[in-house]
Formats: sequence, C-alpha cells, structure tokens
Amino acid sequence: MSDDGGMKRIGSVIRLKPGAAEEYERLHASVWPGVLETLRESNVTNYTIFRKGDLLFSYLEYVGSDLIGDMARISADETTKRWWTLTAPLQEPVPDAGEGEWWSDMAPVFHLD
Amino acid sequence: MSDDGGMKRIGSVIRLKPGAAEEYERLHASVWPGVLETLRESNVTNYTIFRKGDLLFSYLEYVGSDLIGDMARISADETTKRWWTLTAPLQEPVPDAGEGEWWSDMAPVFHLD
Repeated sequence: MSDDGGMKRIGSVIRLKPGAAEEYERLHASVWPGVLETLRESNVTNYTIFRKGDLLFSYLEYVGSDLIGDMARISADETTKRWWTLTAPLQEPVPDAGEGEWWSDMAPVFHLD
Repeated sequence: MSDDGGMKRIGSVIRLKPGAAEEYERLHASVWPGVLETLRESNVTNYTIFRKGDLLFSYLEYVGSDLIGDMARISADETTKRWWTLTAPLQEPVPDAGEGEWWSDMAPVFHLD
C-alpha cells in the first residue's frame, strides 16, 4: 500500500486455478451493479484488475478515511457475498500468501506521480 | 492495457531473481533523477511498482498520444540505459512471458472508475 496524502494505492495479487481464466473474464465483463455500487460507497476508485496467464493483479485507489471499516462494509454486503460465491472457486492464493490471506497485499517499492 | 479516452492504464509483471529483492528495493528507494525526468517527458504518470515475494507488478498511466514512440524514447535514453545495467541483472521474465519479452504486458479484465 502506498499512502499519498489522503489517498492510498493498494496493489494485490492472487492466482486463477488452471482453466478458470475464461470464466473469470466472462464474469468480469459484466460485474453486478450492486457489487460496483458497494465498491463506490466504500471509497474505492480507479480500480483495475489485470491478468497474465493465471496471475491476477489488482490496483485500486482508496480515497476514504477508514480503510478497515470500508473493507468490512464490502465483506458484509449481501450482493458482494453472493458474487464471491461465483468468483472464489476460480481463484487460489499465491504460494507465499500469508496464513488466511486471499488476495495478497503487495508492498510499494517505487512511485512516480 | 486499458484505454480510457486519451489515457491508457498499463499493467505489467516480471520476477526478481532469488535473493535480489533487497538490492532492487535499495535502488528504487532513490531512483536517479534523470530516469524520472525521462519517464515524465515520455508521458508516464501515476507509476507504481509493487512487490510480493519475487513478483513485481507495475501500474502506470500513459497520457501521451504516441505510446510506441515514447517507449522508444525511454529505451534510447543514455541515463535510463545505465540504470537498467543495475536493475536488469536482478530480474527475469515470468515463465509464460512471450519470446523476447522482459516485463510482460497484462490484459485488463475489470475496471471501475
């Protein structure tokens, strides 16, 4: 995570299970409106997920002042939880993920404005 | 790459060689001013590199109108080439990189403004 005044840049990584890329991309071509609405209400902006092979990288900018609270709000949202029942079976943590970690937080090592 | 009006979001991935993380982070804590200047002149903004284990992820926003020309300008810059003699030995392409690819371009699969 990179902290720039009030805005935090958050990079994270996870893997797709072998063969899951097509279904993951199909789902993400039309993410449910309720999922997007909860992200926006939770102060998540400029959010992009990229893929190379089975590797997914997520970049987002958090513009709120209560990151833990906003992430908890996303996790508690019923629509988001139903969405995750579709996406979670397609993914697995990277081999060096921490205990219980799903998407692994990445450390910023360089930034240019 | 994700194209948003004139701006392109570019995500790419590479690996660090085993044991190279500390030296890579040391170098990137004080990137040479000439390297940064060339990036700025080449229309690269909001550029962050993240690390998880030996995995490096790069996110940047390209705001020019000649991506190929600007990338060629970066590659031709003498200071940048000297910088790369320090950083290149620390890195290696991901296993599924294309022929001759160094940092691998990642495909955008999702975006929220």
